[in-house]
Amino acid sequence: MNIGLDMMGGDFAPLEAVKGIQQYVNEVSSPAFLFLTGDENTLNPLLREYNIPSSIVKVVHAPQVIGMHEHPTKALKEKQQSSIAVGFHLLATGKTDAFISAGNTGAMMVGALYSIKAIEGVLRPTISTIIPKENGGTGLLLDVGLNADCKPENLNQFATLGSLYASHILGIENPRVSLINIGEEEGKGNILVQAAYPLLKENKQINFVGNIEGRDIFLDKTDVMVCEGFTGNIILKLAESLFEITKQKQIKHEYFDRFNFENYGGTPVLGVAKPVIIGHGISHAKAFKNMIILAQKMIGTDLLGKMKTSFA
Amino acid sequence: MNIGLDMMGGDFAPLEAVKGIQQYVNEVSSPAFLFLTGDENTLNPLLREYNIPSSIVKVVHAPQVIGMHEHPTKALKEKQQSSIAVGFHLLATGKTDAFISAGNTGAMMVGALYSIKAIEGVLRPTISTIIPKENGGTGLLLDVGLNADCKPENLNQFATLGSLYASHILGIENPRVSLINIGEEEGKGNILVQAAYPLLKENKQINFVGNIEGRDIFLDKTDVMVCEGFTGNIILKLAESLFEITKQKQIKHEYFDRFNFENYGGTPVLGVAKPVIIGHGISHAKAFKNMIILAQKMIGTDLLGKMKTSFA
Repeated sequence: MNIGLDMMGGDFAPLEAVKGIQQYVNEVSSPAFLFLTGDENTLNPLLREYNIPSSIVKVVHAPQVIGMHEHPTKALKEKQQSSIAVGFHLLATGKTDAFISAGNTGAMMVGALYSIKAIEGVLRPTISTIIPKENGGTGLLLDVGLNADCKPENLNQFATLGSLYASHILGIENPRVSLINIGEEEGKGNILVQAAYPLLKENKQINFVGNIEGRDIFLDKTDVMVCEGFTGNIILKLAESLFEITKQKQIKHEYFDRFNFENYGGTPVLGVAKPVIIGHGISHAKAFKNMIILAQKMIGTDLLGKMKTSFA
Repeated sequence: MNIGLDMMGGDFAPLEAVKGIQQYVNEVSSPAFLFLTGDENTLNPLLREYNIPSSIVKVVHAPQVIGMHEHPTKALKEKQQSSIAVGFHLLATGKTDAFISAGNTGAMMVGALYSIKAIEGVLRPTISTIIPKENGGTGLLLDVGLNADCKPENLNQFATLGSLYASHILGIENPRVSLINIGEEEGKGNILVQAAYPLLKENKQINFVGNIEGRDIFLDKTDVMVCEGFTGNIILKLAESLFEITKQKQIKHEYFDRFNFENYGGTPVLGVAKPVIIGHGISHAKAFKNMIILAQKMIGTDLLGKMKTSFA
């Protein structure tokens, strides 16, 4: 199992990425082999300093870096020797089985969609987030921003992708799938969700339990919550802000600790043909460690094979 | 100044409505005259029991009640002697200057839109909510569910209506108006907000400060936050659930106390030609008191006159 990791992506790269690898190696009994893309002159001394065993990592020299604010398509095209471009090349050519970066999100999206491509049958890949439930459980919310405008069938496919992810990666048996709406009954909502509801209802690959409202998002009513990326992104960022606000106000409670999104590592791009995980720009060691663990789990459970079968 | 109040609306009517009147009379130095619609046989003894001075209230007998789950249009048509129908009749005929109910929300909407009608020039009236800001301030979010599908011009009108409300009722000078979006720059977002942005930017009646994201909703970045009713309703109900979740988990902090939406009374329907205020079904005395105070303020500041001038 070979995992590619962009060492130059994120505000605290490469140091926090190296520390994350260290934590990963120390915690996991059978670590995967890691292909690290980035500047070898910077990385090699750091890897030695943090005692990363050379038996499980290989630095793939990539002297260029795509900045956080560069234009994604342009940067990917012009910087073929960047850590992101090289990482996607390794993934596309089968040298690695997954690719992780906390770098330029747009460039990661472009790479995932154009260099790896969508699973056949998937109209629009999606990104999701973990939602901490007030009873201690964990829900999945998608789409959280990749698709600001959706068609009903997009939501239906997000439901299938999210259900497979919840089942195989989050370990939720027969996950309850819901549509985020502004009323509970069928027929409520805007034109999009009114049209999407019957599709989800007839989707035999999911356990559709109906609509949920804003008040249910943090409750344990359902496991997979589906919406278009505009609403989902606003929910995600609002949830993230609760962690910041409670921290700043010194409101200490384990429930709000769980809104620290670093706990969950990164966001996989669901619906592309190979595992691609995008981290937050502010990722620290723990986030990098968790992203590597997530990639390993996605490969180990053959999540992508299951998704391909589902859309075949 | 005459304010109409539906005594039979809400889960705890009429008792909590009577208690709310009592609180109102005790707190306000110049109370308005109240027209109370409902069953006089139930109301008169209760009003006596709670020592409501007969000099400031008049019961207008309305023997029928529209249940919380009745079909709005059908119920309003068939129950002309209901407390809501009678209340709207008083408002439409000028006997009262405002109407308040915590009853069937749909029936209140239908009454507001068809018996009172929109201000000339307003395409779609809207409902809003107060958002408690983490620095102690107060923001206004709209639309929160009346308009699940919107056109760009609807959002632009919500901006104007919200700005007038924030200025005259919330006392915010030159309120900062923003568009809720999934990115900060102009051009971000779904098709709707991309098209709405230039309209708000060119709207000379508002102080437009640009886009805000989900993470900014509880911060003091702007005073009036505009979105379509789907997203707004989800934000509102999610915010309401924070009060419930923190209460249930015994997380005590004055910030979350401010998510008790009962503090804010009800929601005015903005853009209709007269003040109509809709309360939450679970309204208690404090909410009724605050709704009467709000109605009095809307009349006293001639908010509706200002809105009419704005759209003339």
